[in-house]
Amino acid sequence: MIPRDHPRYISLKIRERLARYAKKGIVSLEGLTAHGRGEAFDYLIGERTTESAFLAQRTAAALLMAAHHPVISVNGNTAALAADQIADLQRASGALVEVNLFHRTKKRMESVERLLQDAGVEVFCGEAERLLPLSHGRAWCRRNGIFSSDVVLVPLEDGDRCEALVTMGKTVITIDLNPLSRTSRAATLTIVDELTRAVPNITKACNELSKEERDHLAVSFDNNYLLTDAIREMTARLSHALD
Amino acid sequence: MIPRDHPRYISLKIRERLARYAKKGIVSLEGLTAHGRGEAFDYLIGERTTESAFLAQRTAAALLMAAHHPVISVNGNTAALAADQIADLQRASGALVEVNLFHRTKKRMESVERLLQDAGVEVFCGEAERLLPLSHGRAWCRRNGIFSSDVVLVPLEDGDRCEALVTMGKTVITIDLNPLSRTSRAATLTIVDELTRAVPNITKACNELSKEERDHLAVSFDNNYLLTDAIREMTARLSHALD
Repeated sequence: MIPRDHPRYISLKIRERLARYAKKGIVSLEGLTAHGRGEAFDYLIGERTTESAFLAQRTAAALLMAAHHPVISVNGNTAALAADQIADLQRASGALVEVNLFHRTKKRMESVERLLQDAGVEVFCGEAERLLPLSHGRAWCRRNGIFSSDVVLVPLEDGDRCEALVTMGKTVITIDLNPLSRTSRAATLTIVDELTRAVPNITKACNELSKEERDHLAVSFDNNYLLTDAIREMTARLSHALD
Repeated sequence: MIPRDHPRYISLKIRERLARYAKKGIVSLEGLTAHGRGEAFDYLIGERTTESAFLAQRTAAALLMAAHHPVISVNGNTAALAADQIADLQRASGALVEVNLFHRTKKRMESVERLLQDAGVEVFCGEAERLLPLSHGRAWCRRNGIFSSDVVLVPLEDGDRCEALVTMGKTVITIDLNPLSRTSRAATLTIVDELTRAVPNITKACNELSKEERDHLAVSFDNNYLLTDAIREMTARLSHALD
C-alpha cells in the first residue's frame, strides 16, 4: 500500500495501475518501460500542467471541434490510464475512437476495445487494412477511421507513425512528455503533459470555449513555441539542482 | 519485430530484451518502469559515455582493485542486461558477485543466480540474513558477501539500500542514469551512464590501469563534480534543443 501522504502518491498509484493492466495483457511490457520514460520527463516539468501545456490543451480542443472527421487513436497505455476520460472527451468532441496498438495482436485489440466499451466509449471497430505508409505491422488502421480523419489525436504515439500521419496531410495532435522526441517534433500540435492531467483539460475546453475563442486558437498556435517552453521549464529545473 | 531501420533500434531491442526477461520472472514489472526512467536520462546525456562518466568508470576500477573484499551486487535488471559483462568484470576485478533483489522471492533469486552462472559468473550463494539497517525485506544479504565488503558496486540500486550501505561505512559505487536520484547523491562514487556501456569500461580499466594510476584515481575523485558535470551535460543538451 502506498500511503496517501507520500509526495509522489499519484505517480506511484498510476505505476501500480499500469502493472495491474500489464498482468491482464492490456498494457504491453514495452508499454511499462515507455511509461517510465515519461515519468522522468514529468519529474523534470514538476509533475504539473505548465501554462504552455494548458494553452496546447485548449488549442487541441479547438482543432478537434473544428474538424470534419476527428479521430482519437487509443493504445494500451492510454486505455489503461484514461478509459473514462476518453469517454468524456468523445462525448465533448464528437470524435471517433479507434484502437491502434504498437504491439498488435487480435487478442490485445479485443481486450483494449472491451476495456474502452466498459468505460462508456463508442469504439469504432471493423476490418483494419494496411493503409499507413509504414513498412511493418504498424501500418494497420481502418479506412473510415484514422485513414480518413482530418484531425487525429494520438496520445503516447510512436515517432514513425506520427510522421506517417503528418505526411498524409493530417493535423496530428499528440500528448508526449518528451519535448525532444520525434513524435513531439513531428506532430502538428504537441501537448507536453501527463496523459491523465491533459485529457480532462481538453474535454473541459471542448465544453467551454466559445466559437470565437476556438477560431482564434486553431489558427494562432506555434508548436515550436510550445516545445521550446517545455524544454525551458525542464532546463530551469535541472539547473536549479546545480545551485 | 522491430524493423532494423527504426532510428531507435538499439534502445527498442534492449527494451524487448527486458520484456522477455520479465516474462521469465527475472525482471520485475517495476524493473521495466525503472528502466524507462533511465532511458529518459540516457537520452538527455546523448546515449553516450561522457568524459566525466569515463573518469568515474576508471575510478570505479581503481577502487575495486584496491579493495580487500570487493563485491558486485546484482539485481534482476543488471542480470538481464549484462550477465556476460558481469562475468568479465568479475574475472578482471576478482570481486565476489552476490544477487540482491528489490522484489525478493526465493524463485526469483534462483532464476537470477542461474542466469548469471550460465553466463560464466561465479555466484556467491548460501544463507542470507537480515543484516542491512533497513526495516523491510530489503535488509537481506550474506554475512561473508555484501555485509563484510569494504567496496561494493551496486548498479541500478534503490535509494534506501544505497544509503544503508554508506551508513555502514562502505565505499559504495553505483551506476545510475539519474544524477538527481537519492542513490546517485548518497553513493561514494556515481557513474552516470547506461549499464551496458559502463561495465565493459570498468573491466577494461581494471585490466589496463597501472598501480600508480589506480592509486591516484582512488584518492583524487570528487563525486560532487561528477554529478554536477552530468547535470551540466543534460542541461546543455536540453538548451541546445532550444537553438
